[in-house]
Amino acid sequence: MFKKILYPTDFSECAEKALEYIKRLKEAGAREVVLLHVIDDSKVRFLLKGIAWAGGSEYEEKYKQKLKEEVECRIKKIAEELSSSDFIVKTEIREGNPYEQIVKTAEEEGVSLIVMGTHGRGRGASLLLGSVAENVIRHSSKPVFVIRG
Amino acid sequence: MFKKILYPTDFSECAEKALEYIKRLKEAGAREVVLLHVIDDSKVRFLLKGIAWAGGSEYEEKYKQKLKEEVECRIKKIAEELSSSDFIVKTEIREGNPYEQIVKTAEEEGVSLIVMGTHGRGRGASLLLGSVAENVIRHSSKPVFVIRG
Repeated sequence: MFKKILYPTDFSECAEKALEYIKRLKEAGAREVVLLHVIDDSKVRFLLKGIAWAGGSEYEEKYKQKLKEEVECRIKKIAEELSSSDFIVKTEIREGNPYEQIVKTAEEEGVSLIVMGTHGRGRGASLLLGSVAENVIRHSSKPVFVIRG
Repeated sequence: MFKKILYPTDFSECAEKALEYIKRLKEAGAREVVLLHVIDDSKVRFLLKGIAWAGGSEYEEKYKQKLKEEVECRIKKIAEELSSSDFIVKTEIREGNPYEQIVKTAEEEGVSLIVMGTHGRGRGASLLLGSVAENVIRHSSKPVFVIRG
């Protein structure tokens, strides 16, 4: 019921809070964590366009490289924290629409549930489209445990 | 973190599924359950109007009485099931908008989290307004664990 957890993180404080709940779920049988970060490609495209528009095309590659390194570094840190709590950890970095990639990873990995943080209303979430968490609930068949930051 | 759980139920199969997760959360420290059913007053008003329109006004009171008895009977059954699993159980029957009453009860009772079932997309949920679960996540500051039926 709680054995294999998908933990998508955007490295925010909300996501960090969710990590505490995962550790506690160990007592209810949690053993494995699939640690996922989705690079939101619409945001990256927006940024790269801005860089090109400002005439700094030589920074496009630098930006992509720096982003990759930053994500890998942060993911590694969280993976170590989970490993030291005796979880079996797998890390995933994907690009695309965050909620779609989360739903897809949950299916592919056959997780028991998804544990994720969410900002409150308004921040990063339009009322019409909903937050990433709302969209995950809407589109995934997996149980979803949402922790508000 | 998991001590006091609010469990709102509409007596559906999805809600029943959530009950299994609550029992399992005992191992992670769950002790008390506030068992809530919200009588959706907009639906009741709609029904009573229909009864009156059909000329059956004498059935309005009968309908309300029968609904009350039915809810009490079902709540009692679930409360007994939880008690026999060694939970401290409190039951609540409220009238109003389901998600608003769930959010309000969670605050008033100072629960640690909300565990609830949800139907998938489409059933009982418009894409624009979202399901009860989505609205609870949007409006409550409590962690919400959503189990899809």
